[in-house]
Amino acid sequence: MSKYETADQPRVGLLPSGARDAISDVPGVSVGHATHAEGACQTGVTVVRPHGGDLFLDKVPAAASVINGFGKSVGLVQVEELGVLETPIALTNTFGVGTVANAQIRQAVAANPRIGREWGTVNPLVFECNDGYLNDIQAMAVSEADYLQACATAAPDFAQGAVGAGRGMSSFSFKGGIGSASRLADCGADQRYTVGALVLSNFGRLPLLTVAGHAVGRRLAAAAETGPEKGSIILLLATDAPLDARQLRRLSLRAAAGLARTGSVFGHGSGDIALAFSTAYTVPHEPQRAMPALPMLHEALIDPLFEAAAEACEQAIVAALWRAETVHGRDGHVRRALPQAIPDWRQWLTRPHEQGA
Amino acid sequence: MSKYETADQPRVGLLPSGARDAISDVPGVSVGHATHAEGACQTGVTVVRPHGGDLFLDKVPAAASVINGFGKSVGLVQVEELGVLETPIALTNTFGVGTVANAQIRQAVAANPRIGREWGTVNPLVFECNDGYLNDIQAMAVSEADYLQACATAAPDFAQGAVGAGRGMSSFSFKGGIGSASRLADCGADQRYTVGALVLSNFGRLPLLTVAGHAVGRRLAAAAETGPEKGSIILLLATDAPLDARQLRRLSLRAAAGLARTGSVFGHGSGDIALAFSTAYTVPHEPQRAMPALPMLHEALIDPLFEAAAEACEQAIVAALWRAETVHGRDGHVRRALPQAIPDWRQWLTRPHEQGA
Amino acid sequence: MSKYETADQPRVGLLPSGARDAISDVPGVSVGHATHAEGACQTGVTVVRPHGGDLFLDKVPAAASVINGFGKSVGLVQVEELGVLETPIALTNTFGVGTVANAQIRQAVAANPRIGREWGTVNPLVFECNDGYLNDIQAMAVSEADYLQACATAAPDFAQGAVGAGRGMSSFSFKGGIGSASRLADCGADQRYTVGALVLSNFGRLPLLTVAGHAVGRRLAAAAETGPEKGSIILLLATDAPLDARQLRRLSLRAAAGLARTGSVFGHGSGDIALAFSTAYTVPHEPQRAMPALPMLHEALIDPLFEAAAEACEQAIVAALWRAETVHGRDGHVRRALPQAIPDWRQWLTRPHEQGA
Amino acid sequence: MSKYETADQPRVGLLPSGARDAISDVPGVSVGHATHAEGACQTGVTVVRPHGGDLFLDKVPAAASVINGFGKSVGLVQVEELGVLETPIALTNTFGVGTVANAQIRQAVAANPRIGREWGTVNPLVFECNDGYLNDIQAMAVSEADYLQACATAAPDFAQGAVGAGRGMSSFSFKGGIGSASRLADCGADQRYTVGALVLSNFGRLPLLTVAGHAVGRRLAAAAETGPEKGSIILLLATDAPLDARQLRRLSLRAAAGLARTGSVFGHGSGDIALAFSTAYTVPHEPQRAMPALPMLHEALIDPLFEAAAEACEQAIVAALWRAETVHGRDGHVRRALPQAIPDWRQWLTRPHEQGA
Repeated sequence: MSKYETADQPRVGLLPSGARDAISDVPGVSVGHATHAEGACQTGVTVVRPHGGDLFLDKVPAAASVINGFGKSVGLVQVEELGVLETPIALTNTFGVGTVANAQIRQAVAANPRIGREWGTVNPLVFECNDGYLNDIQAMAVSEADYLQACATAAPDFAQGAVGAGRGMSSFSFKGGIGSASRLADCGADQRYTVGALVLSNFGRLPLLTVAGHAVGRRLAAAAETGPEKGSIILLLATDAPLDARQLRRLSLRAAAGLARTGSVFGHGSGDIALAFSTAYTVPHEPQRAMPALPMLHEALIDPLFEAAAEACEQAIVAALWRAETVHGRDGHVRRALPQAIPDWRQWLTRPHEQGA
Repeated sequence: MSKYETADQPRVGLLPSGARDAISDVPGVSVGHATHAEGACQTGVTVVRPHGGDLFLDKVPAAASVINGFGKSVGLVQVEELGVLETPIALTNTFGVGTVANAQIRQAVAANPRIGREWGTVNPLVFECNDGYLNDIQAMAVSEADYLQACATAAPDFAQGAVGAGRGMSSFSFKGGIGSASRLADCGADQRYTVGALVLSNFGRLPLLTVAGHAVGRRLAAAAETGPEKGSIILLLATDAPLDARQLRRLSLRAAAGLARTGSVFGHGSGDIALAFSTAYTVPHEPQRAMPALPMLHEALIDPLFEAAAEACEQAIVAALWRAETVHGRDGHVRRALPQAIPDWRQWLTRPHEQGA
Repeated sequence: MSKYETADQPRVGLLPSGARDAISDVPGVSVGHATHAEGACQTGVTVVRPHGGDLFLDKVPAAASVINGFGKSVGLVQVEELGVLETPIALTNTFGVGTVANAQIRQAVAANPRIGREWGTVNPLVFECNDGYLNDIQAMAVSEADYLQACATAAPDFAQGAVGAGRGMSSFSFKGGIGSASRLADCGADQRYTVGALVLSNFGRLPLLTVAGHAVGRRLAAAAETGPEKGSIILLLATDAPLDARQLRRLSLRAAAGLARTGSVFGHGSGDIALAFSTAYTVPHEPQRAMPALPMLHEALIDPLFEAAAEACEQAIVAALWRAETVHGRDGHVRRALPQAIPDWRQWLTRPHEQGA
Repeated sequence: MSKYETADQPRVGLLPSGARDAISDVPGVSVGHATHAEGACQTGVTVVRPHGGDLFLDKVPAAASVINGFGKSVGLVQVEELGVLETPIALTNTFGVGTVANAQIRQAVAANPRIGREWGTVNPLVFECNDGYLNDIQAMAVSEADYLQACATAAPDFAQGAVGAGRGMSSFSFKGGIGSASRLADCGADQRYTVGALVLSNFGRLPLLTVAGHAVGRRLAAAAETGPEKGSIILLLATDAPLDARQLRRLSLRAAAGLARTGSVFGHGSGDIALAFSTAYTVPHEPQRAMPALPMLHEALIDPLFEAAAEACEQAIVAALWRAETVHGRDGHVRRALPQAIPDWRQWLTRPHEQGA
């Protein structure tokens, strides 16, 4: 057990984790937050940076799967067409998307003043969930400075739970937010790769909540307040495996398998979107520079990555629940941290044949 | 408990089933088989008929989701474009697709001799999985007569397990095949609809097998033979809810949630395809006849159907495993029925807090 | 010839036009602009309103086709999933998208304060092209007030050419911008429908420019300045035919046929996106209200709509070129109006066998 | 002018052709036919081989665009998922698809007996159009031997017009069939690539027929018999440019631009499907063998390939019309060769300003 595979959250799946059990186990990936937590304003911005350089100049291969398109993210049309990211990935609340997109544009232009002149434009990439239960989303409190702050503080070690874009999010009638995890995959004899996940978890109907296969929600539903599902989840996957955009699209879809195992049916009102990127190579903006010439992973070796992606996403959703703190928001609304509701969760998650183990 | 919700298989989910716990709980839907079970020839054809009439004249609305496109089904391009079925749905082995498609063409032409003359052509719809572990698939034993026999024997009461197209299929290193289930969904005050599922189950890596949330595969994997995953699964959904093609596409994708809960990560080599159709209305072939004019279901009421679809598919996969019999096939290959391997499965699937219940 | 089928622009195709030869020939559709035209600031916002009511409460069926996804539009993910529009359609420059999306959110919340509270959120819908050749796009001059002004001035009679979002756009190295047209389609005996198009035209490599089949660009290219293609085009289609979202997606793709006839190959850097909506019925936001129950058009009768869509789009692109005025923009950049470059265009567009006609 | 850029057909576009003005100008590509031409049986099979080796062992990268999915082709689901071809590409009539798919399976198994045993299955790839106007398609005359004969006779020099799968096809109420063309594209300083097209042309409503921009159909429609459009077109593109599957999908869509220029609106009943493959590298079936490691083309250099694809497809459609011969088929049906209807077509296709040239 690595130091991060601690007993502070239930563990799912079969594969080993990286050192941090977080998306930043993929070398070069960093995460930062900006958080609003004052009264009715419970929201923020989270940024995932695929590498430390200028993403516009050195794009990373990427692709997405729209599992349920009830969502207002921006940037996916171009990612699907061209298969690359050219900005950091931003997460925020639904009504903050436009402002964060503006911040991404200004950031890119500041770094590369030829954008919008000789060079064409830049593709902002902003994902969102609706945190309107806790947060006064109508106030549109997210600012361009929040995005810059999240970028500036991005680091391999980062907070999870009720921070950044996760501050006001809910899951399964409890507190949701940011969760992360990683899994290691052996693709053939000598090829070990890392798959990291980071989720913005804001989905789930309590009676369906499943943790490591246990129908936790069914036991809790009688006692807890349960309304109709509202919400969404964004699932980001990073890997150091050399995959092209077509393969990354396949990888991204496996997020849906992890999501389903926690009790999602990809509900009508839930904008469920997954995006996967690779750090194995970059694609230069300028055609004068050399294109990457490394071999992609043979398709027949890809299954361990698929299992890792599903597990990492399932674990990241569990992490978002277990690393949350209780948050009081607008109009007296409260979301409790799930572990407080079931302090004896270790017992709940034990099976008869495991009792002696 | 209805008479079909028997104790002969584990039960998953929260929703009630229809009377048969089968796809034929959707009124009008019938299923038939033709089975080869001689020596190295372990294969067959299964047919799902959405209604008892002529599907070319009275088409049913339908849509599909390709969860993992490593598959050789025919007919999906047109279903996606036009949103209707115009033949019964056929299931068979991978190398039987061409022959069954030919049978569908001849059947349609025989009933409607204007096809291929004044009327344009007909769109065969054949799904497949690779039963090559048990069956000598290279023999290409499926005939056009098999398809006709499956159509002729279609009925609301039908066999499951190692029959029809399911005869030679494997799941999780055990015997797979045909499974079916149904769930009832309350969409608003007075609207109760049925969602039925039928699967051709030929997928699964044993260590990942999950039954009603229990990691059954992990316990079995030590004892059993486990190879790399090969396989596929076809998931068919029927409903009497009035949905249009766009809504049916959404419904079909929820099959992936049920599939994931059983231990699938939509493996690379697994052709995982879901198709959903509605029996609430038909679309006439001839433009002179009146188009349907009933209101579709309001999107905000669709979630119970999504839950029903996920549950019915998960249950149908469990049914395929539990209703299987052991089959001996080519070259001494054998697939055992899973219940024989764990006769004490009821104990395995009990949780501590349920022991007193 | 209707009063709008004037000799002031070349006419393409075979079908008759509506009274205005504009998208507003579809009853209920209106268009408004807000224009910046000061020095280096040559840009604006254009709004297309499908009907005069509250689109959030009474949504219109819609679907889109991404012909080439090198674009930064917002809102398409949800339109594809749910098949409806719930705001007016906004057009602006690439860097104005976030601001206009914010304006749409505030407008919807002001009209329906339950949005972001009990009702979930609203899906902004903003399309864009890059007007950076004439306009100082880095200045990000578009404001939320521009969007509101464009909404407020929306009317069935509206200006075309270098106005609104079209102010700074270029096409084929000449001045592009807003163009509109309509065509009438007879679908069966008594069913005459209107298809209207409005384009934001900012694409085209001069040597490929084709007008009514004539290789105009080839003749002009020698004399004119021609650079590499940059640009994009947004093609909006409205119809009063009763089509569902699947059919509207089909209709939207036929915009590509009209686009191709003008000399486009859907160039790499051109974000070419088409969207079609129907005014034949609306879909209520609240599930308590009745869903529409009218018959959709039989698919076998849809071809005249496809021809009308292709023609209307081709004509709208011609209109954008012919109704343009010369614009001087940033850094001494100029785009001339095409008709000034070929005052004898009527002669150019005559064929030998037509000379006597 | 190369020897193939003869005056025997109208020439479209701006780019130079390869030596043959055919798809086989892409090195390694060959084409073969098997033709039935007896009485009411006017049909056949055409095969395009991307290279001379075993495609199952050495797959070629490929992708497709479904422009209008009213079609019954097989194999596209897997091509879209995996981005490779593993059989030759077969073309035939709509009711011959199943039989030709069976032939492809048997051919692959004969060459690689591990298929269907240790190796999983093979993905047949068969495209079709409906030749039922001339051909008695109900007779289902295409045999597995036809496919093998077409493979055996494949060569870089091949017949066009009313041969192979094109034997019974119609276009614009005249004789259609097989047409081919090529264009050369300069992508950057030293990179010249070839794009070849081969079409199975069976589409078109006469009044819309456009040849090199001239409204030929409008002039002919008065004199000729014109019915409602039935038909389809398959557009195959080959290139030696190093493109991955995502880029090839983009390339394939540009076939629609060429198609539109000839007078198509992607009619409802027309199955319009394009597929593009690259011969620049192959992908090994076995993971033990090395994956290709060459740089793909930089996206910013791709536009000349797009123009070449559109032009080559437009030219190939013209070739199919001009290289056709008159065919008499079932029930006294006849399709005349278009050049016989307008022996003075050179005059028709001259414009005033070209008369002196």
